[in-house]
Amino acid sequence: MTEPVRPGGNGTDRRSGRGPGRRPGPTETREAILAAARDLFAEKGYDGASLRAIARAADVDPALVHHFFGNKEGVFVQAMQFPVDPEKLVPRILGAPRDRLGETMVRTFLEIWGDEERRAPILAMLRSAMTNEQAAVMMRQFVSAALFRRAAETHRIPMLRINAAVGQMIGVALLRYVLKVEPIASATDEELVELIAPAVQQYLG
Amino acid sequence: MTEPVRPGGNGTDRRSGRGPGRRPGPTETREAILAAARDLFAEKGYDGASLRAIARAADVDPALVHHFFGNKEGVFVQAMQFPVDPEKLVPRILGAPRDRLGETMVRTFLEIWGDEERRAPILAMLRSAMTNEQAAVMMRQFVSAALFRRAAETHRIPMLRINAAVGQMIGVALLRYVLKVEPIASATDEELVELIAPAVQQYLG
Repeated sequence: MTEPVRPGGNGTDRRSGRGPGRRPGPTETREAILAAARDLFAEKGYDGASLRAIARAADVDPALVHHFFGNKEGVFVQAMQFPVDPEKLVPRILGAPRDRLGETMVRTFLEIWGDEERRAPILAMLRSAMTNEQAAVMMRQFVSAALFRRAAETHRIPMLRINAAVGQMIGVALLRYVLKVEPIASATDEELVELIAPAVQQYLG
Repeated sequence: MTEPVRPGGNGTDRRSGRGPGRRPGPTETREAILAAARDLFAEKGYDGASLRAIARAADVDPALVHHFFGNKEGVFVQAMQFPVDPEKLVPRILGAPRDRLGETMVRTFLEIWGDEERRAPILAMLRSAMTNEQAAVMMRQFVSAALFRRAAETHRIPMLRINAAVGQMIGVALLRYVLKVEPIASATDEELVELIAPAVQQYLG
């Protein structure tokens, strides 16, 4: 997750408002922000940890956090190694025509879960949310703010319907990729799109 | 999970083919069978552990296992403290008229997951299946044999459709009861029946 140190630096780490002393390089600063973010998200949840508070805890200027990560969502994705970037995911699904939202959502989920490297961290996160209330709070708030709310706003779909559609996909993914129940574990993506997209479309359409 | 010792015993433990020596009481015998069953299920999976092999490992007559637990399903439910008894669950869902299978399934799932005492062991089992391949194999085989296959046979519904319907319910339960995502966490059961039953019915009908 570390970025290569930019040769010569771009000076951003020098705008950090730090006092005199050894100036940390961009990689060090970036890691300090992520560490502070992890602590704050765990302590205050996603909603309760502001970008400004994260900057303060890392002893850097908020502009620097913005520079590195864009927004709070970006900080969270990097800090928690969240395996899905809502910045990419949400526009992809919501960019579909309204009458193909179901199909697009099923295809996107199958693509993400079908990739073992992306599935492992999703599962790790889901497991910890199932064990640990703190982790559950963080995940719930992030998923609500970054995924559900945005989707609801774009297409004016009631949140409850989005929950039901996402529930469909999470449950199918658990049976298919984790429990490996047959025949859903061996079905092709196309079979699943054909079977499940109409139900998801019914929620979202 | 222990049964009260029946006063005076009913003699069943004496048909166990044991050699001479101290004769275990029914509770002891029952526990020995369950311990042997847990070992065998873990080692060979649900499909691979026969009732006969469980009896052999517990050093009792197979008729005694049958007497205590009915069948292999019953042994599994008790040995793994499986929170749902397929003997009761499956007939309840499948007893519904075909055009109300969706509604009945949603209501049954919400009732089971809505009860915290039953939810805890389901979650524990799901968590271990998510962490441990051996646990996943056991759960997959049991769920397939005891729930899915039976449901498929009764109503001649393709297994893949049953998987999709169960996936819908598992995912909704995770969002509602575990991650507690809003608004699905606070929705009433009736709202959820109205929203989700049509999708489940579409799979099963």
